[in-house]
Formats: sequence, C-alpha cells, structure tokens
Amino acid sequence: MFEKEVYIARRMALLERLKGEEGIALFVGNVDAPAQYKDNCYKWRQDSNWLYFFGIDEPRFAATIDLETGEETLYADDFDIDDIIWMGPMPTVRSLAESSGVANTAPYDAIGAALKGRKVHFLPASRYYNMIKIASLLGLDPFEVTSAGKIGCAKASAPLVRAVIALRLVKEEREIALIDAACDLGVAMHTRARRGIVPGRIEQDIVGDMESIALAKGWGVSFPTILTQHGEIFHCHSHEMAVEPGRLMVIDAGVESNEHYASDFTRTYPTSGRFTQMQRDIYQTVYECNELAFSMIRPGVAYRDVHLATVAHMLDNLQQLGLVKGSVDAMVADGIGGLFMPHGLGHNMGMDVHDMEDLGENLVGYDADQIRSPQLGLGSLRMARRLVPGNVITDEPGIYFIPDLISQWKREGTDMGCVNYTKLESYFDFGGIRLEDDVLVTADGARRLGAQRLPIAPDDVEAAMKQDRKL
Amino acid sequence: MFEKEVYIARRMALLERLKGEEGIALFVGNVDAPAQYKDNCYKWRQDSNWLYFFGIDEPRFAATIDLETGEETLYADDFDIDDIIWMGPMPTVRSLAESSGVANTAPYDAIGAALKGRKVHFLPASRYYNMIKIASLLGLDPFEVTSAGKIGCAKASAPLVRAVIALRLVKEEREIALIDAACDLGVAMHTRARRGIVPGRIEQDIVGDMESIALAKGWGVSFPTILTQHGEIFHCHSHEMAVEPGRLMVIDAGVESNEHYASDFTRTYPTSGRFTQMQRDIYQTVYECNELAFSMIRPGVAYRDVHLATVAHMLDNLQQLGLVKGSVDAMVADGIGGLFMPHGLGHNMGMDVHDMEDLGENLVGYDADQIRSPQLGLGSLRMARRLVPGNVITDEPGIYFIPDLISQWKREGTDMGCVNYTKLESYFDFGGIRLEDDVLVTADGARRLGAQRLPIAPDDVEAAMKQDRKL
Repeated sequence: MFEKEVYIARRMALLERLKGEEGIALFVGNVDAPAQYKDNCYKWRQDSNWLYFFGIDEPRFAATIDLETGEETLYADDFDIDDIIWMGPMPTVRSLAESSGVANTAPYDAIGAALKGRKVHFLPASRYYNMIKIASLLGLDPFEVTSAGKIGCAKASAPLVRAVIALRLVKEEREIALIDAACDLGVAMHTRARRGIVPGRIEQDIVGDMESIALAKGWGVSFPTILTQHGEIFHCHSHEMAVEPGRLMVIDAGVESNEHYASDFTRTYPTSGRFTQMQRDIYQTVYECNELAFSMIRPGVAYRDVHLATVAHMLDNLQQLGLVKGSVDAMVADGIGGLFMPHGLGHNMGMDVHDMEDLGENLVGYDADQIRSPQLGLGSLRMARRLVPGNVITDEPGIYFIPDLISQWKREGTDMGCVNYTKLESYFDFGGIRLEDDVLVTADGARRLGAQRLPIAPDDVEAAMKQDRKL
Repeated sequence: MFEKEVYIARRMALLERLKGEEGIALFVGNVDAPAQYKDNCYKWRQDSNWLYFFGIDEPRFAATIDLETGEETLYADDFDIDDIIWMGPMPTVRSLAESSGVANTAPYDAIGAALKGRKVHFLPASRYYNMIKIASLLGLDPFEVTSAGKIGCAKASAPLVRAVIALRLVKEEREIALIDAACDLGVAMHTRARRGIVPGRIEQDIVGDMESIALAKGWGVSFPTILTQHGEIFHCHSHEMAVEPGRLMVIDAGVESNEHYASDFTRTYPTSGRFTQMQRDIYQTVYECNELAFSMIRPGVAYRDVHLATVAHMLDNLQQLGLVKGSVDAMVADGIGGLFMPHGLGHNMGMDVHDMEDLGENLVGYDADQIRSPQLGLGSLRMARRLVPGNVITDEPGIYFIPDLISQWKREGTDMGCVNYTKLESYFDFGGIRLEDDVLVTADGARRLGAQRLPIAPDDVEAAMKQDRKL
C-alpha cells in the first residue's frame, strides 16, 4: 500500500468530480474466487478500482462514500481465533481503515442498511460474486450490474464511471514508476522465453520456465500467456506443440507486479533463429508499423488516427509484396486492413492489462465525440482517444494470415477486388506476427516503458537468438 | 479425455444408483472466472464433477440426464467466425458430444425449457457463476444452491450427491495411474524447492522457481503453495520473508496434472540444513506419527481411528518431552491433541486436492453412522470413513506451536491441567512441522503414491540437503 495520503487524495479528487450528485457511492472489493470448491481458490487478486481508492489488499471489504456529506465508511469483519489458526494474525479492520485514511468502520453485513433509501452509485462488477452482492443489495438481477459488451452497464452510475476513468486514465508518477518496474520484469520474462526456443521442446515447457519469473518476482502473469506457433490465433492458450524449425513463435505475455501494475509485451521469433525471406518481409512491415506508431504518439493526437496511419503503412507494404492492390487511402477507408490485422493498435494499461475494461470498453477508450467503428480491425480498437500526458498505452501492430477469415472474405467478396487471393494462398501456413511495446505519453511526446527494450529490429532479433544459443 | 466408453460407463453407473428416482439430473460445467474484467480470466479449469462424467474440457457446457428414460443431452453453442479469429478453430458441439458418448445436443440457453415441470436433481455449486446459473434456472437464491459449510447444500439432490460421492471415492485404475503421475511431478517440484532453501533468499523466489515445474509439466499447482517459516500458520500464503538460518520451513504444495489429477505433499526442512536438537525431537515425533498412520491404513479401518491413534502417539512423545502430563487415553478423549495439531490427519484426494469438497465435507468424509466431533483438531478431520480399496487419502500429521491459541487455552483453562505452559513458552518461536504423503488404499493394505518418496526421516533430510548444497 502507498501511504494513506495517496488514497485520501484520490477519493477527494473523485468527490470533487461528483460534486452536486445526490446519494452514496458503493465500492465492493473482491472475495476469493473458487477454482474448485470454496476452500481451494485461485490466487487472491483484489479489485483494481478498490485498490486504487482504498489500497487494502484483503478479501471481503466494501466501502461507501456519501457524495453529499463526504462521509466514508469501511465494511469488513475482524478475524476470530479459528481464522488466526488457519491464516495467521491479521491486522484489525480498524487499523486497515486507518492505513487507508477512512474514518468509520462497520460490519460487512451493515452495507445494506447504509444504502437504504439512498440513491446508490456503483461501478459495473465483473466477478460473479460482486455481481451477486451488488444485485442483492440493490434488488437487481446479477447480469444487470455487469458491463454488457463494450458499452458498459446501464444500471451503473454514469457519473461515477466517468469520474473513475478520468482519474485512472492519467497515471501518477508513483504509478509510472511501478509500471516501469513491471515492464522490467516483463523484459526478464520474455528474455527467458526467447532463450528457451529450441526446436523439439514442448511449448508448455517454455511457458512454465518463463512464468517462474512472474511468480518469483511479481504477483504472476498479467494475463494468460500467449506462446504459440499459430500466431494467427490471437488468444491461443494451447501449448501442446513441440517447437518446429522454420516457424514463427508469437510470445505475448506480461507480468503483474506485487503492487499490481501490469506489463504487456509481444515479440515474434523465428524458431530456427533466422527468418526466411518471406518471414522477414512481413516482419519488417510489422516492425515499421510499430516504430511509426511510436513516432506519432504525443499529446493531442487521437490514437484512432495512429491506428489508421499504421494500417495505411501496412497496406502500402503489402501492396509492394503483391498481396493487395488499389489506392491505399481507399483500402484504409474500406477496412481492407482488417483482413490482415483484425485487432486494434493498442489499449490502455495500468493495474489491469486492459486498464478499466470492467467499466466498459467504449467509455474507457473513446472520447465523447468518437464513435466506434463497426469495421473488422478498427472495430476492435480499444483505445481511440486523443492522448494526454500520463496515458499508458500499448503499441502492438500485427499481420496474420487466418485461413478461415481469408476464405470467408473470398467467398463473400468483402475485399471488393483488392486482395490477391492466389498470392495469399502461399501464406496459409505462415501464422502471424505481432510486435508490442508499452508506451507512456509524456508532456511532449512518448517514452517506451521499462529500462531496456526487448530486441525488435529483425537483425537484432537474429543476433540475440544467436547469442542465446551460445549460452 | 479418456475414450468415450469411460464416460458412458460412469454415467450408466450413476443412473443405476439413481434407479427409481423421478426427474432429471442437471450438470452445469464451469465458465471462465474473471480475475479482473470479463476478458482477463484466471487459468481455465473445468468443474471436476463435469470432467468425471462428461470429460469435455471447454467452458460453458451443461448437460441433463433424464433419470426416468436415461436420455442424455448436452447444451452448448458452436463458435462463430469472431470466436475463431480470437480462439482458433474449435471442434463442434456435435463432435464433442460424440467424444463424450452423448446422443443429443441443444443450444446452451435451451436448458431452461428442458427442466420445465420436472423435478431437478443438481449438485451444489461452488463457483459464483454456477450459483447464479443454477439459482436462476430453478428460481432460487444463489446462496441456496451452494454448500453451507461442512453439511452440504439442503436444496441439492441428496441421492445424486450420494451417488457421485460413492463413485468418485473409489478411484479407477486409470485414475490411480494419473494420480501417480501427478505425485511424480509433485516430488520433482518439492525437490526443486528443497534445493532452493538458501539463507537470505526471499521465499517468493523459491515459490516461483518450484511452481515452474507445475506449469511446465502440468496444469499448475493443485492449490496455492504454502511455503513458510511460520509453519504454525496453516494456510500461510505470504512469501515475503528471507530464509533465516535456524528456522523450520514448511512446504505444503502439489501439482495438478494436465489431466486434472492432484498431488499434495508436505515436508519441513531445517533452513540451515541441520535440525537443532529441539527441532529434531518434535520432527521425530511427527515422522513417527506419519509412519504409524501409514502402517494402519487398510480396508475396513476407520480413518478416524487412525487419526486418534496418531494423536495418542504424539501426546505420548510430547509427555516424554515434558510438554504435557496425564493419561494419554484421557488426553486424547479430552481433545488435548488439538492444541498441537488443530487439523485432521488427512483428506480424500483425486481431481480436487480435497476431493469433492464442493459436495459437502461431511457427506464425502463421513460414513452415515459417523458423527463429526466438535473438538479442535478431530473436528477438522475431513476423512473419517472406514477405508475401502481405491480410496486415495493424505497422511499428514503435524505439530505446531501457535502462540495465540496457547494463550487462549491457558487463559480459559481448556487443557484441564494437562499442559506445561512454562515449558511450552520456550517453543513460542518454534513454528510448526507437518509431513504429508499421498496414500492409496489397496486390497490388503496401502501404497504411497508416486514412484519415489521424498526424503522424510530426519537423517535422510539432512543428507539430502547436504547433497543439495554440493550442486
């Protein structure tokens, strides 16, 4: 936890933004999430909004802030002797409230009475327990208090959601330092993984080896590791394949630090240590897109425009390779880039690897005057906003050859004649390439997070892998 | 997955046990469990009862078995092109039904209609999503469809629960082979951990290193790793301490295999590589208790009696050390052992590390004519039943010195004059010792699971640690 002044200041800033609102704001922390039965849970992880405003990293806490009087109350129960035998001596609720700068405490089950007769402002819940808890407190259905897709949650408090997003979108210096540290761990984890790419080795073996760094030095991985020779499958969590010579290995993985800040990097490696010419051509394009995007990041620029500029550069290069043909501007407008990069250029990152996605993707990632596109690719862009200093975003272009998608486009004529399917067929077994860095928007530009950048230029990647093999 | 005949046979056996029951049995598989927001989930883990009867290791499946006609239906939805882009090509619901030997398929949301007007038999849910789902299907409150403490769930189907327990308590040969394999991985993980015990090293660093084996070769750990120099705290998941010379390190950890079978071992190591005399005396007692329990395990013996015999031996030794005084039989009857071992001797193990604990501890671990004791220690015994061949249980005696508990007993006179508190005070900084093996009940006795037993005799432990330091 930070010193209590940090949490007090954050809650004051929140209250300031909610000036004039009636009612009471409700915050429900997480409980343990059972993996199988109630006493065998997944690794404990507190709710990020809770951590941001209260910092207490223990299960079964809730809090209210009276928006009219500013009165704050923490709801939780002290441990009894049975708990102490199993869990060890624990700080009292009173002392935890003190460390968070909250004046009042009450039993956990007193939340209901505190809400009675008041207008209640709550944030959308993502965990099923929180859905049950909030729904039962407010007499709603559990599925009414969670975000429905990208648009957020209709029953949640729009002013509270907006206020939280406004605060968390701009990272404090102390948060940036922790994200830098998470990135350093992420680089160490990726380096371990790269050294493990040896033909014949089972992918899962590399994953276990690399994740030991996340567990030894941090909370764990910031999301389920993607390590696959089928890079064309974005969220491929199957790790059964042996490393095959001549393929491309996409590794998209991050560390969550003990302080619960994330990193998220992607690199793509030739499993044989050297790219084929075909691989190098595509890799070079993705690399240029990554560099181009970074060069454009500065306050005032809409990240949507950076996405589009990146796609334009990609299509231009793919035209030179003979995979598409036509006016680049027209192809960008018609969404042809979505065939090759059906995802967005990046997302916010902070305590959550997709920061605040529980609050509603569109609310987090889009300015009030921006409308989300329905196009494949651009429609998946999670961060479109005009950038401001303190934003932390990912820069992750990619090119993929997805046989099912290509076949569908060909069948349905979605490309409007822009795609050279004959040429494209030779890429059906190519897989995919993605290259991702984490970037801070600074006062006058951008800085890549973490002390050291993972090798990314094609020659540097080959040199690093050559060096690895000597170890 | 096993071949489909395995699942067909298990469901036939279930139906046979439910002959004469009216209505329809409902099985709800798991969905992904969000760690933060909906798209960032903990590692996927299917429900164990679902795996046992249907084997399909994918989220968002449900099934019904009509107890009157035997008709079986699987409820799930096929993937669309968006899913395929993100998750890769997936087998159809129809082909998964085939692999599980289920004749009918229907959309996931058709479950409700299938239950209409029928008596519905369901198993208690532990995960919050399953609680919401079952409750909404049956018009109940989510907390009505989960086990309330040790007694199970009043609204769940008693005949179905009993039938599932009867089947899963007796492991099949194919299950025993998988548990043996999970134990082999557990031994490898523990060996890695033991080698990592070096004064000055942060505990978390050892945990990350050892867990890499669970991740590289199995699904992961079978429960959150306990690795602590405060062994007197049973479920101590804090790993912040540096290894201090002269202490005892309790490591209680297991692996869940890729096939979802668990292992669960505990060893206690002197952090300096050699026991002090005080440590060795207590260690020797726990070791003897572990061996005594194993020697008693055979069909027909109630594990409750093995627990009590172990406690008697423990108190006898503690008497020789001057920590307690009085008739051993009387002390056992009065529950004095609970001060030193406030937990039970063991539990069932299988797909869950505490096997089937979601169904209700008392129903799983107690014969119909056994009543669970309210005493500290014996009251925490999870497995009391008369043993039968095919049971897989843990043998895990321990001795702990818990300052808060000792103070409470002294204050309240709970020991009835049996405890030498003056002597006991010199143990306040001792910590605790636990030694745990996994045991199969065979036709005429018992077999420890796993090809190789972790060193356990005090001299063997010291020899192994001496050898480790040469590596």
